[in-house]
Amino acid sequence: MVYVTRKTHFNASHRLHNHEKSDEWNRKTFGKCNYPNWHGHNYVLEVTVRGIPDPDTGYVIDLGILKEIMKRRIVDKCDHRNLNLDVDFLKGIIPSTENLVKQFYHELLDEIKAHASDGSELYSVRLFETERNFAEYRP
Amino acid sequence: MVYVTRKTHFNASHRLHNHEKSDEWNRKTFGKCNYPNWHGHNYVLEVTVRGIPDPDTGYVIDLGILKEIMKRRIVDKCDHRNLNLDVDFLKGIIPSTENLVKQFYHELLDEIKAHASDGSELYSVRLFETERNFAEYRP
Amino acid sequence: MVYVTRKTHFNASHRLHNHEKSDEWNRKTFGKCNYPNWHGHNYVLEVTVRGIPDPDTGYVIDLGILKEIMKRRIVDKCDHRNLNLDVDFLKGIIPSTENLVKQFYHELLDEIKAHASDGSELYSVRLFETERNFAEYRP
Amino acid sequence: MVYVTRKTHFNASHRLHNHEKSDEWNRKTFGKCNYPNWHGHNYVLEVTVRGIPDPDTGYVIDLGILKEIMKRRIVDKCDHRNLNLDVDFLKGIIPSTENLVKQFYHELLDEIKAHASDGSELYSVRLFETERNFAEYRP
Amino acid sequence: MVYVTRKTHFNASHRLHNHEKSDEWNRKTFGKCNYPNWHGHNYVLEVTVRGIPDPDTGYVIDLGILKEIMKRRIVDKCDHRNLNLDVDFLKGIIPSTENLVKQFYHELLDEIKAHASDGSELYSVRLFETERNFAEYRP
Amino acid sequence: MVYVTRKTHFNASHRLHNHEKSDEWNRKTFGKCNYPNWHGHNYVLEVTVRGIPDPDTGYVIDLGILKEIMKRRIVDKCDHRNLNLDVDFLKGIIPSTENLVKQFYHELLDEIKAHASDGSELYSVRLFETERNFAEYRP
Repeated sequence: MVYVTRKTHFNASHRLHNHEKSDEWNRKTFGKCNYPNWHGHNYVLEVTVRGIPDPDTGYVIDLGILKEIMKRRIVDKCDHRNLNLDVDFLKGIIPSTENLVKQFYHELLDEIKAHASDGSELYSVRLFETERNFAEYRP
Repeated sequence: MVYVTRKTHFNASHRLHNHEKSDEWNRKTFGKCNYPNWHGHNYVLEVTVRGIPDPDTGYVIDLGILKEIMKRRIVDKCDHRNLNLDVDFLKGIIPSTENLVKQFYHELLDEIKAHASDGSELYSVRLFETERNFAEYRP
Repeated sequence: MVYVTRKTHFNASHRLHNHEKSDEWNRKTFGKCNYPNWHGHNYVLEVTVRGIPDPDTGYVIDLGILKEIMKRRIVDKCDHRNLNLDVDFLKGIIPSTENLVKQFYHELLDEIKAHASDGSELYSVRLFETERNFAEYRP
Repeated sequence: MVYVTRKTHFNASHRLHNHEKSDEWNRKTFGKCNYPNWHGHNYVLEVTVRGIPDPDTGYVIDLGILKEIMKRRIVDKCDHRNLNLDVDFLKGIIPSTENLVKQFYHELLDEIKAHASDGSELYSVRLFETERNFAEYRP
Repeated sequence: MVYVTRKTHFNASHRLHNHEKSDEWNRKTFGKCNYPNWHGHNYVLEVTVRGIPDPDTGYVIDLGILKEIMKRRIVDKCDHRNLNLDVDFLKGIIPSTENLVKQFYHELLDEIKAHASDGSELYSVRLFETERNFAEYRP
Repeated sequence: MVYVTRKTHFNASHRLHNHEKSDEWNRKTFGKCNYPNWHGHNYVLEVTVRGIPDPDTGYVIDLGILKEIMKRRIVDKCDHRNLNLDVDFLKGIIPSTENLVKQFYHELLDEIKAHASDGSELYSVRLFETERNFAEYRP
């Protein structure tokens, strides 16, 4: 099996806040990640597809196509945006890195399947919130 | 001459907007950096002090002290904050990387002078907004 | 399943030497890693926890708590220390990167379990001795 | 189980071209990767060996030996070379990153097995074509 | 004075060869950089503009415009190309990193001057051939 | 003027201690950098030569020769060594990063001058003790 990965990035603002809980609970639970006027990150996104290279091209997936899917489905919607307010597929989600990778995975799954070589599919989505913190969704 | 540099980081939100201009001018001039709901960055800050090492310590400046000055004067005020709304010494400043390095320089100048070895002083402040964009103030 | 990772670092000295073998065996086996006056590294430590995000917080584990556990159990004991002489849980261990990750894993296991979300647990410990050499323990 | 990884690099030229297809098919399929006068990359190669550390050395494999195997079998043959024209074990292969990692894996398998500790073996070969694109072979 | 830098990259093939000298001289002088079938690099390009931020925008130069100039004048001509054969402004130049930065500087000088704030201008061009080798032109 | 830089690395142990002062003064001044059993770093060394490229080669200095000088004069003496005890040209020097770059500069000056193109010379020596701390000597 071969695993191919494409890396990209976007810059966004967010805030951790659970609307079903009190302000006090949120401040205590999330600390400075709950500050009211938002903060932000240079997110780095890595998407990995697993499969067998197509014998004609040597590709598990054309990385130019994967780049375009990642741009259209994730980057164009999140870049320079507020992850709590601006992104359709994140409505109602607390934008922790854990929750983001899960949502991104489901945004990408079908379209990657349709463009990968026979038998290949999305394997994992990894998101770096900072160089020191990252999460990966791999079902 | 020896130049010593200490690197740190903070995560903040911001937006480029000139309040003396129309919304249309702002949208046209700043593009996605003007989006209304903020975006953010993992800022990386490098502060360089130039001078002669103290013969007793071999230090131009104790990097533990420099780290503490950078933390108290810059990081504690900017980290997980909104650079347009939350930082006292940035009030009224358009938070471009160019303007930020100039403000940071003046925040740090006197206190670094007071703690560096004889004849040593702040040389430059460099700020990475992303891995691909950075500014340096070096008067 | 979601995997969350926290990265930190410490600077330490060490030397590869097996006290049950002759000096000649040690010199031949470990080469420059056996030099008598120690050498050292900027170690980079990555700890990964696997589980289901808590629905209230979106966290597999609060990374602030994970950071604190890693600091107290590993970094405070190893940073600016000699890994052969100074660290209680490494006594009698040849401090190869392989052996270090295994010891670190067992130092962290229970306390991470106690603080992670339901059903979550320590997944792996990865240690970079240099940018070119690293080991991972993943039972 | 412990996984140890050694990282190295080489600089090479290549071009994606399937000789069984027309020039038009190649241009359409591979785009700028098919440009006739070659292009090139600073390839970064990571080789991971999995096993149980030897009790006498603390090593899954002596990384000095692994480095020498990687140099002799891969780097000396590929560095400053043309991957389509100059490398014996790549003859007839379209040098996509996917195909390269598979060939590298088979070049390294037996010799690593012979030098690793009892029960240890090659686990994966990862190759970065750029910082943004990489492939891993892990059977 | 503020210095702003924009970083980008391209992948190209090249070979060091002086056509006015013998093949033997070239082999002896350039070693593996003279191998006949080309080799290549992931070049990283950093362009720095020095000046006074415009009071309306906070910009020394709009980095979006600088990015577009770098793309049109350098990246579009060099990416996935052969630096000895394919680039108009490099004809007859031995493509050492030293020579490349000088040519790139002169390609960029006037157009950057035309788009920077009053009194601002191109300060330096830096090119990384690898992570370990780079050159800077700064007249 | 063109500036060319070559980067390399070595791993060493050290300790900050001034033998002319009391143990108490040393503990208070240097803190954990004074711990008795040494600590260590993965040092990264960057050497920059400034000059005019030779018209026959396009080189300010042959980076293969610069690499060999850096290896013989610095790396072979410092790698896997104790900077307080093992290095001839560091005897009696407190091995702060500031002091190291000055000593390295004087070790390299004449030999680089002898091998660079006409009119070229050593410009600066930069040493990273960690990714967060570095010093540069540039007379």
